[in-house]
Amino acid sequence: MDNAVSLLRAECPLVHCITNYVTVNDVANAILAIGGSPIMADDIAEAGEIAAVSRALVINIGTLNARTVESMAAAGKAANEHGVPVVLDPVGAGASALRCQCVDRLLREVKFSIIRGNLSEVSYIAGYESRTKGVDSGLTAADADPVRVASAVADRFGAVTVITGAVDTVVGSGRIARIKAGCAEMGKVTGTGCMLSGITGAFAGAVSDPFEAAVAAAVSMGIAGEMAYERTKDIGTGSLRTAIIDALSRMDDAVIRAHGGISYEER
Amino acid sequence: MDNAVSLLRAECPLVHCITNYVTVNDVANAILAIGGSPIMADDIAEAGEIAAVSRALVINIGTLNARTVESMAAAGKAANEHGVPVVLDPVGAGASALRCQCVDRLLREVKFSIIRGNLSEVSYIAGYESRTKGVDSGLTAADADPVRVASAVADRFGAVTVITGAVDTVVGSGRIARIKAGCAEMGKVTGTGCMLSGITGAFAGAVSDPFEAAVAAAVSMGIAGEMAYERTKDIGTGSLRTAIIDALSRMDDAVIRAHGGISYEER
Amino acid sequence: MDNAVSLLRAECPLVHCITNYVTVNDVANAILAIGGSPIMADDIAEAGEIAAVSRALVINIGTLNARTVESMAAAGKAANEHGVPVVLDPVGAGASALRCQCVDRLLREVKFSIIRGNLSEVSYIAGYESRTKGVDSGLTAADADPVRVASAVADRFGAVTVITGAVDTVVGSGRIARIKAGCAEMGKVTGTGCMLSGITGAFAGAVSDPFEAAVAAAVSMGIAGEMAYERTKDIGTGSLRTAIIDALSRMDDAVIRAHGGISYEER
Repeated sequence: MDNAVSLLRAECPLVHCITNYVTVNDVANAILAIGGSPIMADDIAEAGEIAAVSRALVINIGTLNARTVESMAAAGKAANEHGVPVVLDPVGAGASALRCQCVDRLLREVKFSIIRGNLSEVSYIAGYESRTKGVDSGLTAADADPVRVASAVADRFGAVTVITGAVDTVVGSGRIARIKAGCAEMGKVTGTGCMLSGITGAFAGAVSDPFEAAVAAAVSMGIAGEMAYERTKDIGTGSLRTAIIDALSRMDDAVIRAHGGISYEER
Repeated sequence: MDNAVSLLRAECPLVHCITNYVTVNDVANAILAIGGSPIMADDIAEAGEIAAVSRALVINIGTLNARTVESMAAAGKAANEHGVPVVLDPVGAGASALRCQCVDRLLREVKFSIIRGNLSEVSYIAGYESRTKGVDSGLTAADADPVRVASAVADRFGAVTVITGAVDTVVGSGRIARIKAGCAEMGKVTGTGCMLSGITGAFAGAVSDPFEAAVAAAVSMGIAGEMAYERTKDIGTGSLRTAIIDALSRMDDAVIRAHGGISYEER
Repeated sequence: MDNAVSLLRAECPLVHCITNYVTVNDVANAILAIGGSPIMADDIAEAGEIAAVSRALVINIGTLNARTVESMAAAGKAANEHGVPVVLDPVGAGASALRCQCVDRLLREVKFSIIRGNLSEVSYIAGYESRTKGVDSGLTAADADPVRVASAVADRFGAVTVITGAVDTVVGSGRIARIKAGCAEMGKVTGTGCMLSGITGAFAGAVSDPFEAAVAAAVSMGIAGEMAYERTKDIGTGSLRTAIIDALSRMDDAVIRAHGGISYEER
């Protein structure tokens, strides 16, 4: 799909996020930068109502609590009833019993269009052994195969599944995309994964095929990270954070085409 | 009033904010930048106590929940009892039943000195038909007249009422100010409205006339946005956000006088 | 200790933070910048579990509420049981009855390795008279002696006690360090104290002696503030904030040795 960014900017989809308070500002600014319109609303009294009128819902469990888990479930069900695509970011899945129970429940009660996490988080969902150290990527399950893990999740839950890492893996029904974009230094800025999940929601609200939405989001975020690092590598990670939003705000389809780095295969 | 900024910097008023977690950091930094001292406290056990010793209270319902709505009401009442001016930012009023009920209740239970929102939010308060898409400005009620809407709210609730947009409208008792400052790109940074409400509280804590406080805040924010956009228009919206705080931290009365763009009329 | 930063970067300790939502993003990015791995988790159902597997726990009461106070206590107890060092940042202690009660309770139920606050906050803990205006430093108790106040807290609670100000004071068992680093403009960025508490946790997770950890953190933060101010003094406080994280991400032991500014004495 060669025009995902221009389509997104033309549509300016409303993206409802129930997300963590650590990175919520960056998620909102990333969604605005790529062309969407974010709304954060996590009270159970309005979560379903807002989700129902949004073009996408993003559920991120990074700072979940007993109150917001209920709102996540309610918003997810309302989105499902109204045909609104739902993105799950299972931050820290496997790191605590609460996170495991929350993810298990959401996967039972809500149909997700796209699930995006790091290898350890998605391995938990796949049912593989996964010991997690904190919420950061690349710390465990290093020997697992992302395509195998993502395929297991995609098949079991019927969701396009994205595992981000040095190479991002996107697995849909019958299709795999591998995306070589981004840089390791993005891991030194909190919330690059959350921002990616946020813009994945924005693309999913504008692009009808969730596989194409997930690929467009991952490549946009990766390129933004590369551009930002190039600008700020001699400055530091505070500037890298700002530059990632800058790059997202200037992203366009021509930049993505010129970058390349996406390979597709059937499965 | 030609010395609002210097007065604010001399007074350094304590500004109590019960505000949303999306933009709270920018609100705090904006208040510091313009010369105030922010304190965020939203538990019902301390909200009234903190409000009572503050110089201004800012209530922003952007990520309201059942718990914080009670704190907003309690803080507002305590502020009223102690003569502390209260600013309302009715983020997303009209977007959900919860937000409508919250705004209705706050307007019944608390006397506001200043109400600031976009046209859609203030139209809801005015009782006009208003369908809201998300929390962003300019999306609906585009054909309504800001002066008419703001005047209805000002008259009904006895509050200086500010509607921000391409031109900001400030309506007080017998007075109208129109402020031409700012730029459309500010809408690509989350929280420029929240920041404005925050610094409106700071000015209200130092300047005795809420109409003058509201005008000074709106023109300061608008100029900061223009200066920031001038510096960052070839860079991106991440840098624009940072540059807005930069510009607020360097704002002074001479810059405001030199800018102009404020016109007054009676009503 | 001449290799604290390199040790921290080599260890990359997991740092569990229950902290306020105003500055949580900067705290996370500061911990990442200095070489740690932050995790924010404040639900009572997981707070103890996460604390138990972390290398340090940081409790910051900046936006405490009835729910999170319970989580702070539970996490603190779990950390104590598992030998995980705990850092307390008593934001606004003395500013409300709730904050006083919370601090009193935490000090009864949890053994802290390090307590870090401004003079007014630590004076409250010391039991001295302290009237607090908001959460900012330097506003009251200006005539008190930091060494006397910190020593009283260190002796009573058996915790390394840090009072930050124009000169930072670190008091341990039998030792005092005075650190001349940083600049007044850091007070114009919200959360520099919170960031310092966060990286204090990171150092405490890598350096076995909490006194050395506290000194390394304070000097790192102070130098970062100086470097950042030097770069941004003609720009503004938005850029100062970003530059502080930049400087932390480039901090190393050689920079600290070259800076000097630390003096030690016995007590």
